[in-house]
Amino acid sequence: MKKHYREELGSLRETVLRMGGLVEQMTHRAIQALVERKIEMLAEVKAMEAQVNQLHIDIDEICLEMIALRQPTAADLRFIAAAMKINTDMERIGDQAINVTERAEFLLTVPPVKPLIDIPRMAEIAKEMLRDALDAFVNGNDELAYNAIKKDDLVDHLKDQVFRELLTYMMADPATIPRALELILVSRHLERIADHATNICEDVIFMVKGKDIRHQGPLA
Amino acid sequence: MKKHYREELGSLRETVLRMGGLVEQMTHRAIQALVERKIEMLAEVKAMEAQVNQLHIDIDEICLEMIALRQPTAADLRFIAAAMKINTDMERIGDQAINVTERAEFLLTVPPVKPLIDIPRMAEIAKEMLRDALDAFVNGNDELAYNAIKKDDLVDHLKDQVFRELLTYMMADPATIPRALELILVSRHLERIADHATNICEDVIFMVKGKDIRHQGPLA
Repeated sequence: MKKHYREELGSLRETVLRMGGLVEQMTHRAIQALVERKIEMLAEVKAMEAQVNQLHIDIDEICLEMIALRQPTAADLRFIAAAMKINTDMERIGDQAINVTERAEFLLTVPPVKPLIDIPRMAEIAKEMLRDALDAFVNGNDELAYNAIKKDDLVDHLKDQVFRELLTYMMADPATIPRALELILVSRHLERIADHATNICEDVIFMVKGKDIRHQGPLA
Repeated sequence: MKKHYREELGSLRETVLRMGGLVEQMTHRAIQALVERKIEMLAEVKAMEAQVNQLHIDIDEICLEMIALRQPTAADLRFIAAAMKINTDMERIGDQAINVTERAEFLLTVPPVKPLIDIPRMAEIAKEMLRDALDAFVNGNDELAYNAIKKDDLVDHLKDQVFRELLTYMMADPATIPRALELILVSRHLERIADHATNICEDVIFMVKGKDIRHQGPLA
């Protein structure tokens, strides 16, 4: 029974990583489609959503069943509780990637406002944060989680920069307003992906340290 | 011991309701401050955030401790797991209310673009959804939760209406762009509050029915 239980924990870990890989890929493809103006790539992203939704349901079920049948305590319980919370955040990252594809559907039918530099940069950092957060989860590495959280400021900074730049485009030429607005919303979706990655990091730190770092204000 | 356990469950229920009341109040006050142009009211909203953050930490701790010490199964475990998930969504509703106060801080220093009609209407519906979701949680009433979810379409519809209307203001007079953009973002914050209320409803339905209705597409 002991061994079987360890295997269950390992399989839960793998399922979480699989889902994380999928939502990272969704984010990557959605932004790539927008930047490279490849409208056919958007369908790929949408096709991935069904798998993510199924994994979302599966992970919750696995966790609840393990809690009920195995009655884990201490570290294992914190691991399973973290998996349930991470599951929610990953699913919402997938939702945000879908939101990006919806903006892209409009943006790819109209001429570009400007070459996109900061938006793909935001996506890169957000994906990096997600990868680090999940690495931190599977390795119980709270230092990696702390470092990933620090990158959130960079994403916020880029989001403000995107906003200010597009504002000047809109003021100078009102014909750009609808397109510029959609780009601003894309940057907000990426900001939220980074926020979800931050949530995952906080859950990992709680899991490792048994300590709640949420609501402590900015990290040193 | 049996009685003590029931008391713990009752106190968890009350703590969830207390936090729900606080985040509802934050939403209400933030929008009231914006509509009635009462800048001093914004400080009240910010003052409530500290309490919400403390309750967020408390509820997670109570839940994990109950799972570890009481080893609940079946319905009780689903109730506790639902409380943890609802906790996350309530905390994020509080975050969104704070985001609204930040937009309001700017908007109350500049002349109004237009009288606000749809935005307070969105806030009313979102608060109603949250109240219904929490009522459904404490009474285990899945029908109430189903009905609350249906109101989300109305919020989305109003959000689109706000967007279209402000777009025409911006196109007609670029000087309104910065203010109109902030109002669009306020409507997005309210949309997200309604989304979190929807998440809570889905968690309640899962708790009551032991059935996952997430990712089933639009409800009939």
